[in-house]
Amino acid sequence: MDEFALIRQFFRQRAGHGAGVVLGPGDDGAVLAPSPGCELVMSIDTLISGRHFPEDLPAADIGWRSLAVNLSDLAAMGATPRWCLLSLSLPDASADWLEAFCDGFYALAEQAGIALVGGDTVRGPLMITVQVTGEVPAGRALLRSGARPGDRICIAGVPGEAAAGLAQWQAGVRDGLLSARFCRPQPQLALGQKLRGVASACIDISDGLLADLGHVLDESGVGAELLLTQLPVSDALSGWGSEEAVLRAQLAGGDDYLLLFTLLPGFNLPRDAVQIGRIRSETGLAVLGRDGMPLTALPAGWDHFRTP
Amino acid sequence: MDEFALIRQFFRQRAGHGAGVVLGPGDDGAVLAPSPGCELVMSIDTLISGRHFPEDLPAADIGWRSLAVNLSDLAAMGATPRWCLLSLSLPDASADWLEAFCDGFYALAEQAGIALVGGDTVRGPLMITVQVTGEVPAGRALLRSGARPGDRICIAGVPGEAAAGLAQWQAGVRDGLLSARFCRPQPQLALGQKLRGVASACIDISDGLLADLGHVLDESGVGAELLLTQLPVSDALSGWGSEEAVLRAQLAGGDDYLLLFTLLPGFNLPRDAVQIGRIRSETGLAVLGRDGMPLTALPAGWDHFRTP
Repeated sequence: MDEFALIRQFFRQRAGHGAGVVLGPGDDGAVLAPSPGCELVMSIDTLISGRHFPEDLPAADIGWRSLAVNLSDLAAMGATPRWCLLSLSLPDASADWLEAFCDGFYALAEQAGIALVGGDTVRGPLMITVQVTGEVPAGRALLRSGARPGDRICIAGVPGEAAAGLAQWQAGVRDGLLSARFCRPQPQLALGQKLRGVASACIDISDGLLADLGHVLDESGVGAELLLTQLPVSDALSGWGSEEAVLRAQLAGGDDYLLLFTLLPGFNLPRDAVQIGRIRSETGLAVLGRDGMPLTALPAGWDHFRTP
Repeated sequence: MDEFALIRQFFRQRAGHGAGVVLGPGDDGAVLAPSPGCELVMSIDTLISGRHFPEDLPAADIGWRSLAVNLSDLAAMGATPRWCLLSLSLPDASADWLEAFCDGFYALAEQAGIALVGGDTVRGPLMITVQVTGEVPAGRALLRSGARPGDRICIAGVPGEAAAGLAQWQAGVRDGLLSARFCRPQPQLALGQKLRGVASACIDISDGLLADLGHVLDESGVGAELLLTQLPVSDALSGWGSEEAVLRAQLAGGDDYLLLFTLLPGFNLPRDAVQIGRIRSETGLAVLGRDGMPLTALPAGWDHFRTP
């Protein structure tokens, strides 16, 4: 048996258990029983070493992160995680690396209640592809396209912390809250499920707040006003850099994997959520500063979108 | 919009249509409606340029092939193809390459009735990951584990042609039947679906006939006798190389993506299928030569398994 067959063996021992798993890894495909009355939500994401995470990120964090970014897509759709597949391209088969990768991956998988049901292992540059399937009651998935004028724009968490954490990591500071935000993003699955029937639109912030809000506006055919003074900030983030660097992280820093959503009229804000703006019919996105006037100079990430 | 955003746009235009597709590409995830009474079958495979196909393989063939190897897994489970996701790592964004890749991919997708419902595009070495989902009536998936002593071992097609085609390709001969077998494998989807309730076990030949038959024997806890004189051969294959090279291609050549299956007692062979051996209770795999005696010197691919 070659080393990659051994890897597959290794994964199989820890995989394949969970609700609806008729047959886990080891055959030509996994066999899964979907829940009656539900629709499936599927997503896939590839992470490349040195591009989507620093080459020296610990293997356990890589394992966690590669699942987290996918689970965050399920959260943004309001879906309950069910099953995932993992395709791993590895330059060599180090047992220590693999053990640590699995520890991180399974720590989040168990927390989220998702079962690894199959995969593939090939020799190549370090790249991780995860495909996730979740379930949502039929017709209840949260889309990007439902935002309507007047809807409140909300977020629960501090956007920009992960970008600040990555910057710290690259400067050699590898402990503390900001670093953890980057290394171990927490997909907001419970929030996503709670938003079904409550949010008119939802997306997860992976490209940056402005860019991802822009996707919602584009898909919904509306515009928005964002109030800079309402943006959540933490002591860790405000103490991290200059006012301009913090603003840039808040508005254009990706990697947070927080949900950004708009509320249907008549619903209260979920616990821990804050309102940061409002949808308007006039297209374009206006970011209003402390003086209530639209900012003119905006960080990168803005260029994708219409000026106000 | 950067070039990779444009690629995603390009894929979206051709994607997202098919049965059960509630929401195609463009949101955080696809939304899909599974068929009542069915189970899902899922598989994922990554192809790396220069490892899983020659670097100079035409883009259209790469597109076809990357879907074909995955559809073949669905065929081996007896599943009907439904939806797929594509994660594409590209060194650059050449419109010509992408157009050709899509032509090959969609040609097979349309033939197989599978809808591309989402994906991811990243900059990196040329690697293609496809995840497929099929459906099968609940409890009817074909497994590797059901072979029983006395069951006939069957195949429909000529194993070894793809391996010969790859060898020809590498020697610069790039037309003809053998080359097409490698470049455009035809997943045996109709056969797989016809085998539900008829085959006791099924696998697709990707590693080579002996290796894949070995997987069936391992999973079923049985052994087998294979009759060399019964192995299908074509004029193209027998005219391609020495007797030994042909034998090696037949027994150890991968890439054919033909179904190898064992029949339940009392069922006739499907059309175009031939019997090449029989399951026995004694473990191990005996390959009987023209004289009815077990071969002793066997090609690579054999070493994974017990000698007879």
